[in-house]
Amino acid sequence: MAAIVLYDLVGADDRRFSSHCWRIRPALAHKGLDYETVPTPFTSIGKIGDGSYPTLPVIRDGATWVCDSWAIAEYLEATYPDRPSLFGGPAGHALTAFVSHWWRTRLHLFVMPMILQDIHDHLVPEDQDWFAETRAKRFGKTIGELKDGREDRRGELHERLAPLRQLLGDQPFLGGEAPLYADYLVMGTFIWARKMSPFALVAPGDPVHAWMQRCLDLHDGIARSGPGYDW
Amino acid sequence: MAAIVLYDLVGADDRRFSSHCWRIRPALAHKGLDYETVPTPFTSIGKIGDGSYPTLPVIRDGATWVCDSWAIAEYLEATYPDRPSLFGGPAGHALTAFVSHWWRTRLHLFVMPMILQDIHDHLVPEDQDWFAETRAKRFGKTIGELKDGREDRRGELHERLAPLRQLLGDQPFLGGEAPLYADYLVMGTFIWARKMSPFALVAPGDPVHAWMQRCLDLHDGIARSGPGYDW
Repeated sequence: MAAIVLYDLVGADDRRFSSHCWRIRPALAHKGLDYETVPTPFTSIGKIGDGSYPTLPVIRDGATWVCDSWAIAEYLEATYPDRPSLFGGPAGHALTAFVSHWWRTRLHLFVMPMILQDIHDHLVPEDQDWFAETRAKRFGKTIGELKDGREDRRGELHERLAPLRQLLGDQPFLGGEAPLYADYLVMGTFIWARKMSPFALVAPGDPVHAWMQRCLDLHDGIARSGPGYDW
Repeated sequence: MAAIVLYDLVGADDRRFSSHCWRIRPALAHKGLDYETVPTPFTSIGKIGDGSYPTLPVIRDGATWVCDSWAIAEYLEATYPDRPSLFGGPAGHALTAFVSHWWRTRLHLFVMPMILQDIHDHLVPEDQDWFAETRAKRFGKTIGELKDGREDRRGELHERLAPLRQLLGDQPFLGGEAPLYADYLVMGTFIWARKMSPFALVAPGDPVHAWMQRCLDLHDGIARSGPGYDW
């Protein structure tokens, strides 16, 4: 079987930093599937395949192309049903969708403005102006303004992580005794931030920090590889 | 098989209002189990069984007593494995625990102060002073003060429901195409509020409201029965 190709967002110094691509790398490892990555800057995404893909990750599996991390996870689950499950059945799939919406609305979109400037600073040069302009347009402020006062938002970030923190008092992973796609999808945000920003989202002593460390160890520690910040 | 006995919190006019008991009634119906309820005011909980149960729900199934809604759901799942599943397997169980922590930290504890006064006003007389005093001690304000300005908290409540709202754009229930215990545990808060308070947590047009209406229709509409507010 030929390796699956993952088009993987890349910054300067080969930093693989996409939160969404970092869901798919552990998902592929979880399924025991061979893959290779094609490092792709933001401004080269439009050159992938037939040019129709707006975002990463994109995978190519033989003749099949799939874009979007959720669609890719569903594709892998449906295409390789005999490999370890990413969702743990229909109920697990339905409830992972809840985790995904929690992650997006309550965590990722809250963290994003705080670290856009740091992300910008670690992008390849050809991506930097495009990134600063599109994000400023999206948020209505410059990425420098969005970073301002982020220390004051730590308290709310801590509170927003309460459901995850309390869960991790009962079980080591969102998936229970072992990780599932629900872990990978939340963990993507932490890997993304650790690759690009010195602003630690969690501190030692927090159960979320301990979970993050457990996730970083998974699958031969792939998420620890390469440059980044160690928090 | 003798019916399971559910000790069910009761207010004035036979209002069965406990959010936690309202997880167990649909769970019993989901499993197709016969049950009968014993209406129990707050100040009579200590008289149940051997007097060791601090809260409701408590069930008695033959010689077995179980207290605490999560423990009861797990008991029912383990004891009646051939009946329709409440969790949908180990992954569903693990992820329902996340929903439960989200529900508690982000939804239920946020709503509670806003409607304690209304709950008080619909309690049986012998519970009222005890309720007002214990809640004032817990929150550091009188239940009247806690209600003040609740209209101003609607915006934040709406935002806190975002993960559920967005999920319900993709699927009719937290459990997917059909309800699971994850639905019942979140729904308990809405039934509790509808039984006791005119303060509508959601409004028509909101997907969360439509989901609430679907849940109210489940199991012969048991959660619509009895006195309450129609919002």
